[in-house]
Amino acid sequence: MTERSLLNQLIDALRCLPGVGPKSAQRIAFHLLERNREGGARLAQIMADAMLRIQRCRRCRTLSEHELCGICANPRRDAGLLCVVEQPSEIVAIEQATDFRGLYFVLGGRLSPLDGIGPDELGLDVLESRLHDEPVSELILAISPTVEGSATAHYIADSAARHGVRVTRIAHGVPLGGELEYVDGGTLALAFSGRRAL
Amino acid sequence: MTERSLLNQLIDALRCLPGVGPKSAQRIAFHLLERNREGGARLAQIMADAMLRIQRCRRCRTLSEHELCGICANPRRDAGLLCVVEQPSEIVAIEQATDFRGLYFVLGGRLSPLDGIGPDELGLDVLESRLHDEPVSELILAISPTVEGSATAHYIADSAARHGVRVTRIAHGVPLGGELEYVDGGTLALAFSGRRAL
Ligand SMILES: [Zn+2]
Ligand SMILES: [Zn+2]
Repeated sequence: MTERSLLNQLIDALRCLPGVGPKSAQRIAFHLLERNREGGARLAQIMADAMLRIQRCRRCRTLSEHELCGICANPRRDAGLLCVVEQPSEIVAIEQATDFRGLYFVLGGRLSPLDGIGPDELGLDVLESRLHDEPVSELILAISPTVEGSATAHYIADSAARHGVRVTRIAHGVPLGGELEYVDGGTLALAFSGRRAL
Repeated sequence: MTERSLLNQLIDALRCLPGVGPKSAQRIAFHLLERNREGGARLAQIMADAMLRIQRCRRCRTLSEHELCGICANPRRDAGLLCVVEQPSEIVAIEQATDFRGLYFVLGGRLSPLDGIGPDELGLDVLESRLHDEPVSELILAISPTVEGSATAHYIADSAARHGVRVTRIAHGVPLGGELEYVDGGTLALAFSGRRAL
């Protein structure tokens, strides 16, 4: 192994993967080279293509190689329901777990003035246009109930109110099967403050 | 996310990485697309190049993009010492941890007739040529002490004996700082059978 051999370059480059340190990078490199070159070559090609061509859907801001993502382009989705999430991965989770058939909007974060994240960074101007142009009857907020998340939710709720759109938020609390002693304190506090009459 | 979107293709392709299931593949894809496209693009390029160009060194059979790897091509390495390992990754470990300055030979496995792995599959003909052509004075076996590993070691030792080359093997036993109760039984048995007088 001379310095900067192609093998060492590969091991270094693999460290851009989340959670991959020097040891796992080496293990991955040897695995691909010795056992799955075809898979590695295919991954390399798709990855190059994806990094270049995947952009944000202009309607919902999720990741897509098309100007409109598959959900936004699907005429059978219910344009009356609009669900606001923080990250594209949350759309995948909702699509897999629920029968929600409305549309989405991806913020990409939460309002955080100190970090320079204002309404424009979250695309709230785009969301505002959608509330104006589209037949949205209910805006569902799936935003984490942190301080910044709540501020973001309030900001969006105010905007929706100006357009006469009903705003709801998904329920937060102890997960199904979650044992109380293992649930984090914030969730437990939320579950108590959000208690309902039987 | 329509079926077979470029994003889904990327998530599927990432599963060729060892230990990466559907959830981590998704996490990696979003991480690269949202936070490190430049790193992802560089990785894709190097990976494509590596899968295509990295082959086996013709002298030691380790992975290299050159016909001769950096170690084999280095005239300052001691050609009198030849260390036989099972995998290329073991060369990296030995180079990092020891001051060994000899040369290597990579088997790529162990003799296993039932799996169709014979002397040729391990390149033992190449090793034999080296013992004949090169000034090897000591052949060091760094082969794991399993049944198949021992059979492989014996086969190589016989071949070395025919060329009048001294054969040694690295010590196996309880690792430094290893607490006996946590060491696996096979290692502990080896440590006992390999005990030396104080
Ligand atoms: Zn979209
Ligand atoms: Zn070599």
